[in-house]
Amino acid sequence: MRAVTIRDEELVVEEHPDPVPGKGEVLVRVRAAGLNGADMHQRRGLYPAPPGWPQDIPGMELAGEVAALGEGVERFAEGDRVMAIIGGGAQAELAVAHERLFMPVPEPLDWPAAGGLAEVFVTAHDALFTQAGLGPGDRLLVHGGAGGVGTAAIQLARATGARVTATVRREELRDAVSQLGAEVIAPEGFAEHGPFDLILELVGAGNLPENLASLATDGRIAVIGVGAGAKGELNMLALMGKRARVFGSTMRLRPLEDKALLARRLEQQVLPLFDSGELRVPIAATFPLEQAAAAYERFEAGGKLGKIVLVVQ
Amino acid sequence: MRAVTIRDEELVVEEHPDPVPGKGEVLVRVRAAGLNGADMHQRRGLYPAPPGWPQDIPGMELAGEVAALGEGVERFAEGDRVMAIIGGGAQAELAVAHERLFMPVPEPLDWPAAGGLAEVFVTAHDALFTQAGLGPGDRLLVHGGAGGVGTAAIQLARATGARVTATVRREELRDAVSQLGAEVIAPEGFAEHGPFDLILELVGAGNLPENLASLATDGRIAVIGVGAGAKGELNMLALMGKRARVFGSTMRLRPLEDKALLARRLEQQVLPLFDSGELRVPIAATFPLEQAAAAYERFEAGGKLGKIVLVVQ
Repeated sequence: MRAVTIRDEELVVEEHPDPVPGKGEVLVRVRAAGLNGADMHQRRGLYPAPPGWPQDIPGMELAGEVAALGEGVERFAEGDRVMAIIGGGAQAELAVAHERLFMPVPEPLDWPAAGGLAEVFVTAHDALFTQAGLGPGDRLLVHGGAGGVGTAAIQLARATGARVTATVRREELRDAVSQLGAEVIAPEGFAEHGPFDLILELVGAGNLPENLASLATDGRIAVIGVGAGAKGELNMLALMGKRARVFGSTMRLRPLEDKALLARRLEQQVLPLFDSGELRVPIAATFPLEQAAAAYERFEAGGKLGKIVLVVQ
Repeated sequence: MRAVTIRDEELVVEEHPDPVPGKGEVLVRVRAAGLNGADMHQRRGLYPAPPGWPQDIPGMELAGEVAALGEGVERFAEGDRVMAIIGGGAQAELAVAHERLFMPVPEPLDWPAAGGLAEVFVTAHDALFTQAGLGPGDRLLVHGGAGGVGTAAIQLARATGARVTATVRREELRDAVSQLGAEVIAPEGFAEHGPFDLILELVGAGNLPENLASLATDGRIAVIGVGAGAKGELNMLALMGKRARVFGSTMRLRPLEDKALLARRLEQQVLPLFDSGELRVPIAATFPLEQAAAAYERFEAGGKLGKIVLVVQ
């Protein structure tokens, strides 16, 4: 099979041996594989894949057709449309993973949407609901509303009846983000729009003091992305006075059982909203697998609405 | 009645009108009232009592005998031994509060122990269990193990089967703290004793970077006291990598319904362990009400094991 391959921080597309499904595993003919911030770090050698996954083939999410079943697989049959978060190796013509990681692709979704769904919707759903307990009427602020996790979070929060404000740096993207259901504001002076019950931080630690200042009592700050800076000052007296919580999360390093549980939750609580058309996966651009380097470049340039997805013919 | 009174940051004992119990309220003849860090701040004008409570009479916890019942009180009868966390006014001969705030005093406890129990055990129980979900086998680090909340937390965690390490600055107090069930260490280099699933921070924000470094995956940092400094640097990338949580808490500013709920939880889950003798309230010193100023001085001097309590004859 051909696969995107990291060679000395460069991306090339090379021939690799076809993976073989073991017991309980599914072999998937990949049709689309979304890009994520972690791929950028991995390419630079800063974020290796967890043990047991391909180390030189990037890619944490995919959608495709089941091509072969390992021993004892029960959930899927050959030809089924499936998607998953995996530990690595998604940006390839074939990928293999345990059947419990896969979810069925909702019927209305095309391949790019399915290939760019899992990581951002699982991340947003886990942070907003499982970890932060967002409920109807809660006031959510999303820092970085135009990106993959941002657009997913805004839609999920709106579908739950929360009130959503989102910061978007690029003026030309603000209309599109507000059409997802958020009140869209510039990052500067965002705290004036508070108080917020939950702040989803997708930008950087520099917002931390102002985040805390604009938080309501019992408020929560969920840190999912810190591309613009990792270290910030925390005023613990303010944290105590508001009985606030700051927590961080990543998907990739979680064990198989966690990832499988997250997939079950998404099937139960989120995928029906794709069937009904209430949720969608905004796609900024697609690139063929062979143009992975250009796709990564586009991802790093920023200023996009939604996902960059590699597609495999 | 006579009551400790704050006059220009000085503590005097003055005559005040006797409080009168309203509907659902209980009048208590105070026998003991513990001192807490918040009293020190209040005395300096930095931490006013919440609205509806005496503003010039300090005191957030008390134990005593029910002296009179307001209309509709059902939980108690005159003469009952009761204790509570209240919003202010505990350091007096009489105090009044809603009956739902009061708990019965466990039979083995004398007045100083009962008067110094509520604030620290409710604070520790809420932080360790309700907020951080401490369970058997979890590794807990308590920063500041010799103080009121520290000694309560160590005992509660041990009673649950958690493994407890505690930092104690003063060498002369370490033996006594280890007798409560903790492995006692010096604050310097504490991270070498990790990883910890939960860190209870009772000292200051300066520990924050090393706390995060010594935290296990899915670990939590509960911030309850920051006397040694409120601001610290938070590495949000490390927070994400460990999927860690930092949260702060205070008791005083919580609404009546919260305080009542905390009292019910303590009755259910903690007070039986005082009946059985498994838990105790370490008392560093008692002072008569008239010597409140000396008691506060002793509190601020630090280096004590357990509580400073005012007693009323």
